[in-house]
Amino acid sequence: MGAHSSSLSLSTANITTDYSSLFPRKSKPKPKPNPNSTFSPTIEINLLKPTCSFISQNSCLNNSTCPSSKIVPLRCAKVGFMETQEGSTSKSIIEFHSIDEELVQKIVYDALVWCSLHGLVVGDKSVQRSGAVPGVGMVHAPFALLPATFPESHWNLACEVAPIFNELVDRVSLDGKFLQDSLSRTKKVDVFTSRLLDIHSKMLEINKFEDIRLGLHRSDYMLDEETKSLLQIELNTISASFPGLSCVISELHRSLLKHYGEHLALDSKRIPTNAAANQFAEALARAWSEYNNPRAVVMVVVQPQEHNMYDQHWLCAILKEKYNVTAIRKTLAEIDEEGELLPDGTLLVDHQAIAVAYFRAGYAPTDFPSEAEWRARLLVEQSLAIKCPSISYHLAGTKKIQQELAKPNVLERFLDNKEDTAKLRKCFAGLWSLDESDIIKRAIERPELFVMKPQREGGGNNIYGDDVKENLLRLQREGSEEDAAYILMQRIFPAVSPALLVRNGICHKDHAISELGIYSAYLRNKDKVIINDKSGYLVRTKVASSNEGGVAAGFAVLDSVYLN
Amino acid sequence: MGAHSSSLSLSTANITTDYSSLFPRKSKPKPKPNPNSTFSPTIEINLLKPTCSFISQNSCLNNSTCPSSKIVPLRCAKVGFMETQEGSTSKSIIEFHSIDEELVQKIVYDALVWCSLHGLVVGDKSVQRSGAVPGVGMVHAPFALLPATFPESHWNLACEVAPIFNELVDRVSLDGKFLQDSLSRTKKVDVFTSRLLDIHSKMLEINKFEDIRLGLHRSDYMLDEETKSLLQIELNTISASFPGLSCVISELHRSLLKHYGEHLALDSKRIPTNAAANQFAEALARAWSEYNNPRAVVMVVVQPQEHNMYDQHWLCAILKEKYNVTAIRKTLAEIDEEGELLPDGTLLVDHQAIAVAYFRAGYAPTDFPSEAEWRARLLVEQSLAIKCPSISYHLAGTKKIQQELAKPNVLERFLDNKEDTAKLRKCFAGLWSLDESDIIKRAIERPELFVMKPQREGGGNNIYGDDVKENLLRLQREGSEEDAAYILMQRIFPAVSPALLVRNGICHKDHAISELGIYSAYLRNKDKVIINDKSGYLVRTKVASSNEGGVAAGFAVLDSVYLN
Repeated sequence: MGAHSSSLSLSTANITTDYSSLFPRKSKPKPKPNPNSTFSPTIEINLLKPTCSFISQNSCLNNSTCPSSKIVPLRCAKVGFMETQEGSTSKSIIEFHSIDEELVQKIVYDALVWCSLHGLVVGDKSVQRSGAVPGVGMVHAPFALLPATFPESHWNLACEVAPIFNELVDRVSLDGKFLQDSLSRTKKVDVFTSRLLDIHSKMLEINKFEDIRLGLHRSDYMLDEETKSLLQIELNTISASFPGLSCVISELHRSLLKHYGEHLALDSKRIPTNAAANQFAEALARAWSEYNNPRAVVMVVVQPQEHNMYDQHWLCAILKEKYNVTAIRKTLAEIDEEGELLPDGTLLVDHQAIAVAYFRAGYAPTDFPSEAEWRARLLVEQSLAIKCPSISYHLAGTKKIQQELAKPNVLERFLDNKEDTAKLRKCFAGLWSLDESDIIKRAIERPELFVMKPQREGGGNNIYGDDVKENLLRLQREGSEEDAAYILMQRIFPAVSPALLVRNGICHKDHAISELGIYSAYLRNKDKVIINDKSGYLVRTKVASSNEGGVAAGFAVLDSVYLN
Repeated sequence: MGAHSSSLSLSTANITTDYSSLFPRKSKPKPKPNPNSTFSPTIEINLLKPTCSFISQNSCLNNSTCPSSKIVPLRCAKVGFMETQEGSTSKSIIEFHSIDEELVQKIVYDALVWCSLHGLVVGDKSVQRSGAVPGVGMVHAPFALLPATFPESHWNLACEVAPIFNELVDRVSLDGKFLQDSLSRTKKVDVFTSRLLDIHSKMLEINKFEDIRLGLHRSDYMLDEETKSLLQIELNTISASFPGLSCVISELHRSLLKHYGEHLALDSKRIPTNAAANQFAEALARAWSEYNNPRAVVMVVVQPQEHNMYDQHWLCAILKEKYNVTAIRKTLAEIDEEGELLPDGTLLVDHQAIAVAYFRAGYAPTDFPSEAEWRARLLVEQSLAIKCPSISYHLAGTKKIQQELAKPNVLERFLDNKEDTAKLRKCFAGLWSLDESDIIKRAIERPELFVMKPQREGGGNNIYGDDVKENLLRLQREGSEEDAAYILMQRIFPAVSPALLVRNGICHKDHAISELGIYSAYLRNKDKVIINDKSGYLVRTKVASSNEGGVAAGFAVLDSVYLN
């Protein structure tokens, strides 16, 4: 472990938490209300004495989060409101005051209009074709009405480490043996990782080397209330979502605070500029330019049904408008069908040369329903196209590698600068493999302090509470290799704050936790680092469920940062 | 009649036409393909030999327009295409060439994405709450893929007459006796007009005079192929729709031509700047400013369900962003419930002083389901709030007044400038009341050259073809006053051009006709004219149905202008 001793941070932790994403891709730890919270909420709402006389025209969208919802007709039938989880933070020391409810209703209405006019939209899963045809079945993206507060010092740290993580990923990606060795036990029990490793092995065998390397990453953090530290949840090296919509939500919040900030005592200038979409588009454009074939295009590798397509379209729109670079969209199955490798290594898909293959699919086992998709993934990797990510960048972002890098003296193998390694370590949560017997013993004794995370991506599979103990005991009894499919992580206890979460036109007052993601872009060509910088940010805010140990039903919403 | 003799223009007309709006508010004449058309189409598509190998994932949305549709699965399941009315212009002298269909598919996809990201949206009637709650159940507004060609000379004329029509409306509105007298027979047979006249009478009785008068108008035109003249269909003085979305569709076309113009031999610079939204918002803001109460708001009078709300929201967003003027939305029923007239004439609604009442409802009998709505309309009229429109502006825009103004020497009662009256007359189609026996005789002989239009608004009630004859004969037999409920209008034969109409994510190749609307704003305070100018434009394009005499099922789409 790094500079933060796990035993220190864990010994003071006494409340279990619970968390997962609405857009279920990556798994997260989950919090529950913290009685010692000092993480001041931006919004003060009297949740103990609900005065919300508002509204819903719709039934509860998410039964798991609104067992106590009060739904009454909305005046003007404009905007819906509901209370969820009322009283769940009765222990909170935060003194909530009421925001004028009519004001909230106005802000929600304005926000919904703003989303509609400014492309803060997603496909509505309940509408046919909404995942395939743009322009039909749109609904506003779920959003927090106001930005989430983060202390500036932690924000600065998260920004500072972004280029260091970029560099780390690049260095790790070059160490094929480290990747293969670290994942060798996982390979035996996790078919998905095994197939990725096979592709990686093939590339090692043919000495495939990527001169031009492009990373579009997002490092996710939570503020741990116990240790007052910013702890990394995971580093996404493939398909980091929402670089497009994150900028739009920041603009929404800035616009709302411009008009209502005075009433709320909030200053729109404290929402940091969010350049994620512009900078990701720029990185794609510059990678395209390095590829140096004016007739080649950027290929976005997509899922056949993509309700988050508008997030992707924002990047491609900027790519076209600002850089005049054309993007095409192809599924892995289409790439298998239409793809062709020329003798010189050029990847053609539907007769078009591909300069950059930008993966917004291919991160989960479900993206590979047949051999066709695996053939496509291999074809892309074998080609000269710039992969974002390459197979080695992809592997460098796995949980197992995250855990290996957290071991003592491992970072130093990849990074020379001691300041840099110290900064990274500051952000490392406790991470262990299941062959560390002292930690297993401790986790069986105090399971509430740990999360068991499967190496496999896809979200929603984390194990909490007594289930940690039971699973560890079972694995010990069975003595199987299955333990290699998991890592253990320190359980993080984020601050719980009141929030107004708007989904499907309905505003929910609730207690919520927030996760900060920092986007960063990395581009190099041989020895020349062309881009290495943070690009922007995303906050996802979610009901702090008291459903400990279970998998919270999705209700994360897009959010932005308010610095204090 | 005016400078254009009706007998001349009618005697050369030999093809019947048919037209109505998708957004059924105002009734229109309807065309059918014209074998002598010389109005060159912008788009050249081989419709006689359909090579379109594209797509629909959806069933036909509009059965009446696609009896011959070919629907085959779309590659990539991205965008749908269908052929409608194929071969319907087989007599056309225009030589269609093929646009590359893959290119069309790309442009359609890009256009759909563009709509989604830039707020070119409407509520999807098939989704619950989409007419009441912003941000839910959105679908791209139906649009023409490329702008409609208009000759620059006609465009210039339409722009030139806009301020003259504004002035005319204002002058006519001041002549209460003219309005009452002209509509006296209509009053007996049309309950809706009668109620409006009652309000008008009450205002005359109390000598109510509006110092500040605001008009946000749209004058609609079609190019008559027979006479090569631009003929006015109607002048909308109440609730002129699409000032918001018309600007966005112009931007869409400009963006598409920027990227694809070279392939299509079209120049984005030939799409005129469209400032309708900005200028209507400015007019509202300046009217608000003339009202001179910083705490007062603009009230948009809306229908309880409004699927075109985003068009309205665009105006209000600009009003807020650019002029920091707040708008509220109220239905007539809400105004009745929450409205209050202070002794000084101030209109309060929900305790807020109303500076401007901007009607986007109240133009059709269906907007007044009970006495409550009529009480609200009267309340607003009695108040000091600036009405857009006032009752007299509203009446000045009725078809009967349009017809009265077209009589010889009537324009001269209101306008001094001979050049101005001559310009207006150029745009007048033949218009007659049903007490002109020689015209009735002629219409019974040649019904295909006339349209019978009910005075009542609401659209879809125009009478064409043999039905004109039958109805006129019936009215003669019955000798009732019912004839006063109608006017007769020269039937206009607009050019038919091939077009690509996109609705609900599906592109239809078809033959279409276009109607040009010119927005104009007028604001005066006592003797001072503050604004009198054209503001922008809208084109609505619609399948040229061969269903002669019937009411075409709605399939008008938003379009913009390409000057040639």
